[in-house]
Formats: sequence, structure tokens, C-alpha cells
Amino acid sequence: MAEAPPDDCRPLKYSIHKFSTFSSNYVPELKYFRNILEDKPSNQGSRWSSDSNNPPQYLILKLDRPAILRTIKFGKYEKTHVCNIKKFRVYGGLSDENMILLLESGLKNDTVPETFLVKYTVAGHQFPVRFVKIVPLQSWGSTFNFSIWHVALGGFDEWTMVQKCINWYTTYREREAIRLCLKHFRQHNYTEAFESLEKRTRVTLEDPRLTRLHKMLVDQGDFDGCEQLIGEAAEEGLFQQYIRQQEYKPQWTPIIPNPGGSSGPPPRPGMRGGHQMCIDTNTQTIYLFGGWDGMQDLSDLWSYHISSQEWTCITRDTHAEGGPSARSCHKMCLDPERRQIFTLGRYLDSALRIPDNLKSDFYMYDIENNKWTQVTEDTASLGGPKLIFDHQMVMDVEKRIIYVFGGRVLTPSRWEGCVGGLGLDELRTNNYTPSEAIFSGLYAYHVSTNTWTKLRDDCSGNSTGPQDIKSRIGHSMLFHSGSRQLFILAGQRIKEYLTDFFMYNIDTDTVTYISDGTRKDSSSVPAAGFTQKATIDPHLNQIHVLSGLSKDKDKRDENVRNSFWVYDISQNKWSCIYRNEQTGESYWSKMQHVEPCPRFAHQLVYDDVNKVHYLFGGNPGKASLPKMRLDDFWSLRLCRPSTQQLYQTCVLLIRKHRFSELARENSVMALKYLQTRLHSAVDHSDPQQVQEFQALATTLFQPQDDTSVGYVQAFPDDDSSSTPTTTDLGWRHTARSMLFDQLTQFFPEHMTQPRGNLVDLIPY
Amino acid sequence: MAEAPPDDCRPLKYSIHKFSTFSSNYVPELKYFRNILEDKPSNQGSRWSSDSNNPPQYLILKLDRPAILRTIKFGKYEKTHVCNIKKFRVYGGLSDENMILLLESGLKNDTVPETFLVKYTVAGHQFPVRFVKIVPLQSWGSTFNFSIWHVALGGFDEWTMVQKCINWYTTYREREAIRLCLKHFRQHNYTEAFESLEKRTRVTLEDPRLTRLHKMLVDQGDFDGCEQLIGEAAEEGLFQQYIRQQEYKPQWTPIIPNPGGSSGPPPRPGMRGGHQMCIDTNTQTIYLFGGWDGMQDLSDLWSYHISSQEWTCITRDTHAEGGPSARSCHKMCLDPERRQIFTLGRYLDSALRIPDNLKSDFYMYDIENNKWTQVTEDTASLGGPKLIFDHQMVMDVEKRIIYVFGGRVLTPSRWEGCVGGLGLDELRTNNYTPSEAIFSGLYAYHVSTNTWTKLRDDCSGNSTGPQDIKSRIGHSMLFHSGSRQLFILAGQRIKEYLTDFFMYNIDTDTVTYISDGTRKDSSSVPAAGFTQKATIDPHLNQIHVLSGLSKDKDKRDENVRNSFWVYDISQNKWSCIYRNEQTGESYWSKMQHVEPCPRFAHQLVYDDVNKVHYLFGGNPGKASLPKMRLDDFWSLRLCRPSTQQLYQTCVLLIRKHRFSELARENSVMALKYLQTRLHSAVDHSDPQQVQEFQALATTLFQPQDDTSVGYVQAFPDDDSSSTPTTTDLGWRHTARSMLFDQLTQFFPEHMTQPRGNLVDLIPY
Repeated sequence: MAEAPPDDCRPLKYSIHKFSTFSSNYVPELKYFRNILEDKPSNQGSRWSSDSNNPPQYLILKLDRPAILRTIKFGKYEKTHVCNIKKFRVYGGLSDENMILLLESGLKNDTVPETFLVKYTVAGHQFPVRFVKIVPLQSWGSTFNFSIWHVALGGFDEWTMVQKCINWYTTYREREAIRLCLKHFRQHNYTEAFESLEKRTRVTLEDPRLTRLHKMLVDQGDFDGCEQLIGEAAEEGLFQQYIRQQEYKPQWTPIIPNPGGSSGPPPRPGMRGGHQMCIDTNTQTIYLFGGWDGMQDLSDLWSYHISSQEWTCITRDTHAEGGPSARSCHKMCLDPERRQIFTLGRYLDSALRIPDNLKSDFYMYDIENNKWTQVTEDTASLGGPKLIFDHQMVMDVEKRIIYVFGGRVLTPSRWEGCVGGLGLDELRTNNYTPSEAIFSGLYAYHVSTNTWTKLRDDCSGNSTGPQDIKSRIGHSMLFHSGSRQLFILAGQRIKEYLTDFFMYNIDTDTVTYISDGTRKDSSSVPAAGFTQKATIDPHLNQIHVLSGLSKDKDKRDENVRNSFWVYDISQNKWSCIYRNEQTGESYWSKMQHVEPCPRFAHQLVYDDVNKVHYLFGGNPGKASLPKMRLDDFWSLRLCRPSTQQLYQTCVLLIRKHRFSELARENSVMALKYLQTRLHSAVDHSDPQQVQEFQALATTLFQPQDDTSVGYVQAFPDDDSSSTPTTTDLGWRHTARSMLFDQLTQFFPEHMTQPRGNLVDLIPY
Repeated sequence: MAEAPPDDCRPLKYSIHKFSTFSSNYVPELKYFRNILEDKPSNQGSRWSSDSNNPPQYLILKLDRPAILRTIKFGKYEKTHVCNIKKFRVYGGLSDENMILLLESGLKNDTVPETFLVKYTVAGHQFPVRFVKIVPLQSWGSTFNFSIWHVALGGFDEWTMVQKCINWYTTYREREAIRLCLKHFRQHNYTEAFESLEKRTRVTLEDPRLTRLHKMLVDQGDFDGCEQLIGEAAEEGLFQQYIRQQEYKPQWTPIIPNPGGSSGPPPRPGMRGGHQMCIDTNTQTIYLFGGWDGMQDLSDLWSYHISSQEWTCITRDTHAEGGPSARSCHKMCLDPERRQIFTLGRYLDSALRIPDNLKSDFYMYDIENNKWTQVTEDTASLGGPKLIFDHQMVMDVEKRIIYVFGGRVLTPSRWEGCVGGLGLDELRTNNYTPSEAIFSGLYAYHVSTNTWTKLRDDCSGNSTGPQDIKSRIGHSMLFHSGSRQLFILAGQRIKEYLTDFFMYNIDTDTVTYISDGTRKDSSSVPAAGFTQKATIDPHLNQIHVLSGLSKDKDKRDENVRNSFWVYDISQNKWSCIYRNEQTGESYWSKMQHVEPCPRFAHQLVYDDVNKVHYLFGGNPGKASLPKMRLDDFWSLRLCRPSTQQLYQTCVLLIRKHRFSELARENSVMALKYLQTRLHSAVDHSDPQQVQEFQALATTLFQPQDDTSVGYVQAFPDDDSSSTPTTTDLGWRHTARSMLFDQLTQFFPEHMTQPRGNLVDLIPY
């Protein structure tokens, strides 16, 4: 997914400008050495080495000529080396004192040179650098010095083009400096200075609409006019950028079934783990089948109708109706157009793994006609997968093809009794994947022709070509109907937790790795080893991952983490929506109506039309109650503010401020305003807003406290002393300016004055 | 030397505001924990622990009320711990986004809580903080997480006082912001904006004299007026602050004896190491006695007269004249008022260490009368030291007391032959300090009463009370006649290189440690293990340390370093004047008239009146020529610019600029100016100035290149396009402004406009 360097990048010559420290002979460039300018992987001495890894360490290179820097390449030694840099930053600038961050990354500890693309634009334009500063932060051998073997810089230094960039950049920075001054002068009421500067430089501080807002609000006090302007802005969609930047807030809601009539509580699915759910968004129905209740496999089929919040038991025993026998660790997928459900795979206790039982039976359920059909007695006999469990199955509804990937193949037991297979959705026996475990590959099933095709075998062994796929269990696989890609994430093999993430294009049969899992920054992607359930939203282009309890009993007490992540496919960016690291029974029993406790072997489905997730049951992994399973049912919504909510927020801010001005002038009018216009702006269903509203009333009857005003006017206009004062006019100007800042935060950045403040930039 | 916290410091309450990461249960403050607010050294869980030591890690505390923060105390665990913080920074501010650095330090890895004073003033005033950010940089176990066990904050939070500070601070920052704007506007010729802002805020940009200089230079082009103003400033001493901030440049000069007449080269001391020199600054004479020439001890006494640059051999054999026998590793000191030289101690080969030879003979030489006297046959019999070598001896001339400290006591040999004593100034036998080596303590000798007093015994063992002194060899001891303190630095015991540095007050008999050597930042103090020679300047309050070759053959090939350091006693600050890490014979033979090669067993004396050091001879430690000694003689001056030099620099800058203006207007006049006024401003003995002068002449006949102008005018006054241009007026204003910046760099900071630039503060 990385951007390729431009083809016509040229090597840029440089010399060593400065360095923090160096060890003995490992100086970057003495008269007698050309260490890092040259790439000599076999020469142990050909490097810059700091004298320790105590911060700050740095190396500053000076380009022979100013240039647009595009790439930086680090050479390596011919063997791995403890001094290689695991984490570093690169800065660049026209002077060695003012630099901006161009790159933050790290090197692999191997022998392969690595090239990186660096930041080279600001505000949409290319900017030139003369100095490049490399700051090592961590070495691979954590107590060792840093070494840089070789650096090559690439970019463009053709002078006419670079000169244009320098000119643009100078003008850009000057303009930004002037804008900061204008903002400052306006805030502090240095009116004449503001006007002189604006006229002389002709720099625009902000979008004219916001200048109009400022005049209306700060100069004229036309509050109604402000509300109207903001309403128009909201309607134009100007708040969208702000909304998109807000974090999602997770909202879990337990779904309590409607209380029954006199016939007692209505039927609902019993506690289980290793079951399957799928959702038909067209009919807003969730289907649930099978599982393990702690004692035995189940074969009941249920449907849940979302709007009526009712469960219906379709079949108590599918087997009796020509459907699959009781099972768990099976997989299910749904075709919403033809209204068919398919199920494949199941787990077998080792005692039952005799060849006759090891047929991979494949069923289809016709929803319309409530009819089960055994499609195939053994898919393996048709070239499909053998009997597997803990695989993944998804459907390309448009082409009517089902994809099955991974899972472990059930083979005839070699031993009786205690040594069982690894039941990943069911912790029933000693969990054990024998070293000769076979993992199933990637298959496609054409429904219409009832044909199985094997697309990929498990590539075993260490050398993986870029088109090879490692099979696995406990992974997630999702189908993106728009781009027609399968997304495959994580999972495990024998004692090995995988952290890779790749796409398989079903039309071109190509594999593309999004992350090979080697450069893992543990805080910015979901952690490996925890049961994850994933869903996809092909419209918003997002993948959601819910991580929970580790299947591995040994790992379970460590890092138990309920966390929810969103992966933005277009931006290739993971965001953590929330992370709950709480452990302990008392905590989770308090939370039982607030958030589902950590678990595995549960099911998560996603309504991509209404943007709601549903979760049912699973195994809470209680060491004291190993047979206990859950039967709770939850919905999850990820919430962001809406345009209307933001508009209401602005109105409330404006009216609260209006109230505070009235309170200083005329308590009676203020009280009336509070009871009418301010009252109508409050959302009385929000307890916090109500509480604040009530507090405001009491302030009418208290002395004013001006120390609460956020910033103090250092040089007020009244020509009195030069100490800060809070005259009424001064207070009003300041308070209205603060309100202006609050209102404009919802507008897009390209429209507003700079967010920063001049005073905050002063160093000490 | 650390400042004590103010007595009336109050504990400041705080809560946890933010933290970067945390490990499991080690959260700073959950509802259920009050971890770092409480000091529970026995509770392993009572701490904040980051989840790793990957940067950035931080912990932000929020004070209950804004306060002047004075102290921060870190509690510890009851045992040493790998997670203790070895290096950290503390920031503070009124908001959690704008903070300034208050402290950079580290904790000892022990069980003792440590309290630190923090920065609390800016521009001479106290400033308040609300947020305190602790940033761990290194832990003691380098791969481990950071842990903070307990933090207590102390300071003053009385509201009236703090509010005054907030007001002052707000006004201060506002003023600094305005000054940056004024500087920027003036540079860019935004005249009206400049005047409006200045009038409205009444902020002063700079000292009125510099405003006058600016007007004369930039507005009026009155260059002669500028030269005069600068001349007056120089005479007033306004350049002193700049001069004091300049680094010393070392200037070594080999002293080649005057060539003799027809009688051949004049006599001069032969090659030797382990000799002694002392200097009589009154008579500008250096005395040199004894030493080892590679084959035998010497007993010649020489004097060197500095101004005539002549050596005189006073005595070829002092022993023949009633003085000391041939010796080396003795110590000598001089009383310039009574014109007496004293010498004590010497080294004896192990074969010669029979009790009869082990008398500590003590001699005095009367310079006036050229007469040697044996003061005592054996100082030990009078309560003084036994026979020692590699000790230190200095004199309090005012009270006529000699101080002797350290050195190794020569004891009767227990073995014959190969196992000898440790001859530190003479590498003659196997260097070996037997584990039962005895080190001599601190003694005072009253010359007038011929009385010895022992002030301190060697404190052996590990537990040292604060008033105990560890004896040692190879150390330096200096007497500060002003403060009447002995300064003792470094040295070694048995296989242990000491890095401490302490003072002994001879009047109060108290020891004060300047550095106990434990928190050693290797790049900011002279390294241990290298022979250092030290001198003192009691007027400038400085100690000079010249480090050279390691005595230890094993260490010698590693870090050979010729380095010269200056310790500023009042500021408690070490500065490295230079460091030469070159090794190799070819390099040093090229340098033989430029800088003395690394050596040990040499001698260094200091003329504190003329500020010149002198160095003679020593052992270059050539493994191939173990008997070789040196006889080279050097002077060392540390140079800084003088007021007159700075004035000349300014005049040259002004005239060069004048020339460049003329060159654009009238080549003939420019040439004439070059030949007359500019020519007279050049120092024709300085080859670089001459070269630049000659280059200027050629520019008259080349086209102008405006890309050399440092900054580009983004918004020129000519109302043409908004791209940067370089009109003549614009160029002149810019070039004159740059000259103004160059000239004002020599003025004290409190007089000039801010050094920073508005544009450089813009973040990205």
C-alpha cells in the first residue's frame, strides 16, 4: 500500500554538517573517511556510531544545494547488528535550526537496505530543504549505541523549480505569521494595528463568512444574526469535516427480550458458545444456529426480528428436519437475495474421529420455504475442503460464490482418550494442536454449478512468496462487495500467533499484504492472540474488530482486553475506539447492563444499513465454571455528533453567553431570558445540560467573579495603568472573542483563522 | 553546592491529569488507587508504571490551584529497582499544552527519596504553573518500563501572590509577542503597522541607543554615525557580556630556545618525566627540578626566565650542594614572597626499599641565596607523612602553611625483584599496587614553627561520612588563595579510578563535595583514568584541567584523548575547551610544532597574572621505546576576542556593506572606497580577511546576484505582484537590516530586540 518513489528522483549530494557524538573511529566524515556517504556493507568500520544511546543523539546532513527531498535510503551491514536503528525520526529544513518532521519510522534488523518516502509538501505545495537531521530513538539492542551505515538521499534539485518552491514557502510562512498577528491583534482590540497590517500585507485572516460572524458577534452583539449564520452554515454541510474528525463513542445496549404475557417469559436461545449468527439486513432478521451449551452440541435454529425485538425458534432440532446434526465450530453464511443459508464444518471430539464420521457435510437452508437440504455429503469428495473447524466462510452474493479459508482438518484420531484436538471455539479437552496439524487452504464454491475449486493450498514452511497464503485457524475473513476483495486478518497456527493482514482479489487471484505483521507497534493495531471478531462496512469502507478474551488459558490472566478497533481501508489506518483493561468479577458484574464482559466463542454480526452490531453469548472462560456459557444479547452503535446536534450546541453557547451579558446589566431581563430563550435551547433529556442550566440561575444572585475569564487583557485600551484590568468593555470584548473561538471550532480549518496563538509560540 | 529549598515551601495538592500509557494495575490514580500520591515504599504496586520504555512516555499532574512550584520530590521503593528513572525531564505551565522545561536530572537507583529544586523564574520574576509534566527518558534497567513510586510537589500557592505572578507572566508573554511582531514589521518595512502597534501597546522593542543605530543605519544610511555609536558602545564596555560568552580558543606555542652564539646551542633541561616545575609570577621565572630521564633519576635544578626565553642551569647536582639526592615523583611548591622552594617525597625502586632508605626527607631551597637546607631528615618522625610519592603539595603563602595530601606510602619491600611498587609517574617496573597499599592522608606543615599536623587519615572502607576523605594517588590538588579552599580532583586507589571532586576549607576544616562522581555524564566532565594536570586562577575563579595519556598500558590504546577543560567555580560548570581524539604517529609527528602529543608524567604550571600555561617534557608512552622521555617546552594561551577586535569587526562589516551599496550605484566611487576606507579597515595580517578583501574587488566587474540576499521580501511595498521581488529599495532595506542584526549580536541581550524571528516560530 506504500506509495512508490517517483521515477525521476535524483541522488542528492550531501556532506556531514553536525552530529551529537561519535565513537572512536566511527565518525561520519573525517578528512580520511567517507563513512556513511559510502555503502560498504562488508566494512564494519564504515558507519557513524554514536557514543551511547543516551538522548539526544542526532546526525545532520547538509545537501550541496537546496532540494525537494523525496526519499531517504538506509544501507545496512552484511549481518544483523545490535546497533541498527529500530526507531528514528527524520527532520528537514532550510536552516539547521528550524526543521519539520519528515518521517517517523524504523529499520528492520536485517541486511537489506530500506528506502522511505518522506513528507515533502505543506499546504499542498512542495517545500525545499537544505538540512536533513536524523534522530535515532531506539536501537535493536536496547543498551547499544546507534549506528548508521549508509545514507542516500533522493529528490529534485533543479534550481529554477526549487527556487520557486523556496519563494512559495517563504511567502507561505510569512502569510501564516501575519495571520497569527492579525488574530492576536483582533483578540486584543489593537484595532489600528490590525487594520494597518491587513491593508499593508493584504493577507486574509479567514473566510469572509467568518469575518462577518465576528463582526456580528464581537462588534455588534447581533446574537440572533449569529444563530442564523450558523444555521445556514450547518445546512450547507460545513460541519461535515469536524464531524468526520470526531471519535466514535461506543454505545452498548443489552437487548432484554419483551416480557411475555401470562404464559411466562418468551422463548429465546439458551446459553452457548461456538454457535453461528448471520444477518439479513433486507428483512432486518438475525439467524442463529447450533453451538455448544457446556454439555452438548446444539441443533436449534432461531431468528431474531430486530424491530419487534422478538426471537422465534424456527427449529428445535434441524437434524430431525433433514438438516445438519447438532454441531458447533461450524460456519454459516447467508445469501440475502435468494434467501438461503449455508453451513459447513464442525468440531468433533477426538473420540469420535473415526473415518466414517469425518465427512465434510454441507447444508443449505431455504428461508422462504423453511426447508433444509444436504447439498453434499462430503465436500472433500467434490474437490472441496475436508471436514474442518474454526475456518472462515463468506459469500460473494453477486456472483453466488462462497469462499472458505483456513480451519483445521479433522483427521482420524491416532490416540484414544485424553489427547484431543484443539477446539478453539470450545475449550472442552486439553487444547492441543499436534505438530502434524493440517490447515485447510482457500476454496471457492460455485453455488449454481455445485462446483468446488481450490484456489490456494496452505503454504507451509518459512519461505513465503508474495502470492502464497499461510492457512490458519481463529482468523477473520471478510468480503468487500465493492472492491471484490477478501480481507484476512490474524489467526494462529501451531503455537504461533499470526499478525498479518492481507487482501485477496477474487477476480485477479492476487494477494496484497496490508501488513506483514513484522513491524508491529503494539499500541496502534489490535493485539494478537485475542479472539477477534470482525465485520465489514463496504459503504463506509471500514473494518471493525472486536477483541476479547484469549482462548489460551495461560495468556488469559495477563492482558485481558475488551477493545474495539476500526480500520479505515482507504486511509490504511487503525483507530482504537475503546479499550477496557478492567479485570475482576466485581467490576464486570457491575457492568452487566453496561458492557459485555470479555469472552470468546461468541458471535458478532453487523447491520451495514443501520450501522449496528449485534453480539450473542459465548464462553466467559471462568476457570471455576468451565461449563458455563453466556446467553446475553447486545447491540453496539458507534456514535458521532450529527449536524443538527452541533447546531444546537452552537445555539446553546450563544444563548448562554447572551445570558451572561444580560446578567451583568439587568438581572430581571436576564432571568426572563433564562426562562424563555435559554430554556428552549437546552436539551432537557440530557442531565448534564439540565444541571448546568440550573446552575446558571443561581449565578444571578452571586457576585461576579472575573478571575474566571480565560485570558487577561494585558494592554487594555483605556490608557490607564498597564496592568491587566477587566473593565466591562474589556470583559465583553474578551468574552465574545472566546465565544467566537468556540463557534468556529466546528468550521473546516481552511475557513477559520489559525487555531494556534501567537503568545503560545514564544519560547523561553 | 546545591541550593536549599526555601523553608516555607508548602506541599501542593495535585491530581493525575493525563498519562501516556500504563501497565495493568500500575495506574497513577484510579478511583481505587492513590498510587503515586501516596508514598508507600514497601508496596510494590504503589506506583505508576508505563507499559514500555518506548518514547514518548509522560505523566501530567494537575495542581489543585495555580502555584509557584519550587520542589519536586520522588519517593522510592524499599529496594533498588530496574524501573527507577535514570534520566528525566520535568515541564510546567499554566496549560497542559504550553509548558517550559523546569528540570532535567535523574534519580539514583537506591531507596532514598530525592528532592529537586525546579526553575521558577523567567526574566527575574516568578512564574506560576498549573500542570506539571514528568517525562522519563531512561530507566536504570535499560530495557525496562519506567516506574514512578511517589511524587510530592512543594511551593507557594497563596492566591493573591500567585494571581500577581499570573498577571505579570501574562503581561510578560504578551510583551514578548509584541516585540517579535515589532521586529518583524520593522524588518519587512510594514511601517504603519509598526507605528500603530508600538503606539497602542507602548512596548519597547530595544534600548533607545539601538533604535538610534537602526535609524542611522537603515533609514538614513549614516555609516560614519554608526561607526561612532559603536565605538562609544565599545568604550562603555557594552561588549563584555558577548566576550564572556565566547569560547576560549587554545593556542599552543612551542618554546624554541634562542639559538646560541658560536658556543653552540644553549643549555636546556634534558628529556625527563616525573620532574617538578613551579612558577614565580612576580619574577616571571619557572623552576624545574629532578625527574627520571629513562635510565636514572636526576638532581639538576633549572630556572627559565619567561621574557628573555632563557634557561639557566642553577645546579647540576643538588645533592652535592647539600640539597636533595636525585629523585623523581617528588613534589615541589614555591613561596614567592619569601622566595623559597620546598620539596617532599620521591619514588624508590622496590629493590631499594630497605628501612634505612625510607626516610621522608624534606628540603628547602632559598632562591635569593642559592642555598639548600635539609629541613627534616624524616617528616614522619615529626608527625608528618611517611615517605610518599605521587602525592600533591600546595602552599598557603599568606599563612605560610604547606598542605600535603595523598600519595602512596613506600614500605619495606616484601619481595625482591620483579614485583615492584606502583610507579605512577614512572613506568619502570610492573605496575602493581598490592592490595595492602597504604595511602597517605592530609597534612599541614607550618613553616615558621616547623610543625606537622595530620588533618585527615585516609578513610578506608566503603562507608564514607560527608567529612571523610579518601586518599589517593595521581590526583590534583589546588589552593584557592581567595576562598582559602583546597580543591581536590580525581585520582585513583587500587584498581579504582576516582571521579570525585571536593573542596576542603582550611579555616573551618570542612569538606564539601562538588561532585561525588556517581551521576557522571561522560560528555560534560573530564573523563577519569587519564593523567590530569590541573591549575587554578583565583582571580578568574577557574580551574583548568589538561587530560592526556592514560598511565594504564591497557587503557592506553582505547581512549587516548588530549583535552583541556575549564571549571568555572562560581557557576559550578565544566566547559570543554578542546578535545583531540587523534591517534597515530604520523598525525602527531605532523603536529609537533602545533600541539604537544599526549603524554603523562609531564609538568604544567600556570602564570595567573599573564594567563599563560607552561608545559615541559614527560613520558609519551611509546611501547617500542619505553625509555624515551620528552624535553619539549610549550606555552598555552586561551584566547577570546577583545573589545578592540570586536570594534574592528564592526567597522569592517559596516564598510563592506557601504562598499556593496556603492557598487550598485557607481563603480568608480566604489573602487575608490575599496582602495581607501575599506582597505584601512582590513587587518592585513589576517590572511582570511585579505582574501575576502581581494575577492570584493572582483565583484565590481561581475553582474549582481540577488539570490545571495538572505531573506526574501514576501510583501514588498511597491504594490506590484505579491511574489517576492528584489527592487533596489527593497534590497537596500533588507541588506541594511541584516547588517543591523549582525552588529547588534555583540550587544547584551537585555538591550537588543529579540534574537528569534516570528516566522521561525510557526509550527507546521
